[in-house]
Amino acid sequence: MTKQADIIVHGASQLLTLEPTLAHGVDDDEEACALGAIRDGALAIVGDRVADVGGSERILAEHEAPLVINASGRTVTPGLVDPHTHAVFAGSRHMEFALRMRGASYLDILAAGGGIHSTVEATRRASLAELVALTRPRLARALAFGVTTMEVKSGYGLDLDNEVKMLLAVRELGASQPIRPVPTLLSAHVVPKEYEDRRTQYLDLLVTRLIPEVASRKLAAACDVFLDRGAFDLDETRAILGAARAAGLAVKVHAGQFTDMGGPELMADMKGLSADHMEHVSDEGVRRMAEAGVVATLLPGAAFCVRSAFPNGRRLADAGVPVALATDHNPGTSPTSNLPLMASMGAALMGLTCTEAMRAVTRNAACALGLEGEVGSLVPGRRADLVVFDVPDFRLFLYHFGVNHAVLVVAGGRVVLEEGS
Amino acid sequence: MTKQADIIVHGASQLLTLEPTLAHGVDDDEEACALGAIRDGALAIVGDRVADVGGSERILAEHEAPLVINASGRTVTPGLVDPHTHAVFAGSRHMEFALRMRGASYLDILAAGGGIHSTVEATRRASLAELVALTRPRLARALAFGVTTMEVKSGYGLDLDNEVKMLLAVRELGASQPIRPVPTLLSAHVVPKEYEDRRTQYLDLLVTRLIPEVASRKLAAACDVFLDRGAFDLDETRAILGAARAAGLAVKVHAGQFTDMGGPELMADMKGLSADHMEHVSDEGVRRMAEAGVVATLLPGAAFCVRSAFPNGRRLADAGVPVALATDHNPGTSPTSNLPLMASMGAALMGLTCTEAMRAVTRNAACALGLEGEVGSLVPGRRADLVVFDVPDFRLFLYHFGVNHAVLVVAGGRVVLEEGS
Repeated sequence: MTKQADIIVHGASQLLTLEPTLAHGVDDDEEACALGAIRDGALAIVGDRVADVGGSERILAEHEAPLVINASGRTVTPGLVDPHTHAVFAGSRHMEFALRMRGASYLDILAAGGGIHSTVEATRRASLAELVALTRPRLARALAFGVTTMEVKSGYGLDLDNEVKMLLAVRELGASQPIRPVPTLLSAHVVPKEYEDRRTQYLDLLVTRLIPEVASRKLAAACDVFLDRGAFDLDETRAILGAARAAGLAVKVHAGQFTDMGGPELMADMKGLSADHMEHVSDEGVRRMAEAGVVATLLPGAAFCVRSAFPNGRRLADAGVPVALATDHNPGTSPTSNLPLMASMGAALMGLTCTEAMRAVTRNAACALGLEGEVGSLVPGRRADLVVFDVPDFRLFLYHFGVNHAVLVVAGGRVVLEEGS
Repeated sequence: MTKQADIIVHGASQLLTLEPTLAHGVDDDEEACALGAIRDGALAIVGDRVADVGGSERILAEHEAPLVINASGRTVTPGLVDPHTHAVFAGSRHMEFALRMRGASYLDILAAGGGIHSTVEATRRASLAELVALTRPRLARALAFGVTTMEVKSGYGLDLDNEVKMLLAVRELGASQPIRPVPTLLSAHVVPKEYEDRRTQYLDLLVTRLIPEVASRKLAAACDVFLDRGAFDLDETRAILGAARAAGLAVKVHAGQFTDMGGPELMADMKGLSADHMEHVSDEGVRRMAEAGVVATLLPGAAFCVRSAFPNGRRLADAGVPVALATDHNPGTSPTSNLPLMASMGAALMGLTCTEAMRAVTRNAACALGLEGEVGSLVPGRRADLVVFDVPDFRLFLYHFGVNHAVLVVAGGRVVLEEGS
């Protein structure tokens, strides 16, 4: 007797489960095995969950569904996960890019009125409704590339009302478009101008009011700190993230974009989710992260737009650190929403293999959000988020870079994007 | 009395003519001036030609047309020009990319049966109709990014019949889709396997039969040679291009991808159109190119996919060499058709300013094809090829990388692509 499903996807030349024990029919292909690929793969969806995964013959024999999608000649992957973005903001900072391309330094740009503070001003001026309206097309672009889960940070409000406004924008978007946004509190992005001469008061505000309020209203899942010169130091970071942890939030950190300030070791100590950026980190920090299982979330778009050296993904992977890749979508240093391109850059420019790059935008990216039991792999029980890419092999998805290969996206068990529709 | 036009485009926040003397309303913006930008710009098209360019108020007062396109809030540029591609081919070589991402060398890949020869085998097996069918979607993808002129090389046939077959495919595509292809004979891509032990006979075939036949049938506009170790040496290149020049073809060369073999100096001597790749070139070669006005066509996609160092665009521009950028679209080392991404890479990874990167995919790219009087700028008399990008400033086109901003493309005076249609 056949079981009733809602959607069946079948015939995929490769269906990547991301669970190596599920690999089938790809014994001759070590890389495909490592990604749990199924040749002529299929999958049954019931409600918002993956119900069954396997070869097409068996899945089609055992299940029936009102919607049957033929993915023949195509590659099916889990919905992509973008684990580090600042996608809620107002204003544009493309003139800073133009200045950098003419050789301007960070200080030249600050002197020209640029930097984070200009985005803070524009974001404070915007209403909640305006922020939602500005962010919506950014999420739509990400969805078109196959992203179904996206971390989104606050950090351009930098006071109670404006940080809450940003997180409410994330909540509203979560209820009104297909991408599942994962909100992160980043009030420790930079000390706002009005607190320049009373830095400890801003830290007090974070620890005693902002973090407790955001946590109690469940406006964020995690707390992040920009730990670097010009932002927050190690002691401050430890205090902020300690308060966040006490309030029930997960913790993560921006580490080593410009200077190694001990972020990797701190994340190992605190059992944090991830250390992000990682351009400058010590061998000891890398070793500690591997030992503690902290994800390194790398941001090639930021290195690209500021003309800095790319973080060394090979070194991290060789040390046993789980590597994730993210767009870092933000107005100042990485405006792209093309997560597949970040995966290609992870391979071509940062030393990752094709399997590592693929895992970095799926399973490892889910780990970086503490959601590995929910998204980032296609295993029975996981959320039914998947993408059909119009390539017969996952390596073409990476190699044929700069072109959008997504033709169908399912999020939470619903077809939310279809080519030509 | 108003003049009758066929199409008017108006209201562009920036219309880039690429002719600095036409700049208008942008006195406060040195970069926009250098690109001949017109603020609130408009343009009238008659037939397949640009009839008039200027401020919207004047153009709308002096012209009327059955089709009036409002480009308000958007940037209008000349149709983009991709001056170096190998877009006609059969087969796929993504497994070579995967091997390289695992650290394989060029020789490992040859040993695994890869390299140009595998594409030659697949292309020889394909019929003319199959080649046309395989290439058509590649051109459609390029058009979607705003490309209206594309150089396309032969070089996977490597015998009289198959080289002619490739060039006939280019001709057929020129007659049946909107991009204007510019065919180049690259029979000197590599010595084919069957001539391995009788190299001089292959050179004889090129000089005495292939070049004269292709030139007399007007199947190519130019002749190119892969001048590098493992391909052709300087003396051979001089002989081949000498024969091409004598047969009435323009000449160009692949120079310095792996080794400096004197290509820049040869192009300066021969008044060639361009020297392409340019990863490894001497100061003297650069100086000679600047003096002779030879274009350097740089190929960031190839450096990306083979993990080699990017050519130094800054050094070339500082020396006064006109720099163009191209996709190098080919199955082995750069499968992308995203020319705007190449412009972003030219800025972010190769030291160009935003104006230089913009010029590199328009006016300078047209120069690299000897078509600067025809395409690559929006000046009365030029071919009516233009793109409307959904960004208010050309710098956003470069900065917001990895996302397709083209919403409307006009080629030869006809709207050939429109967002949502």
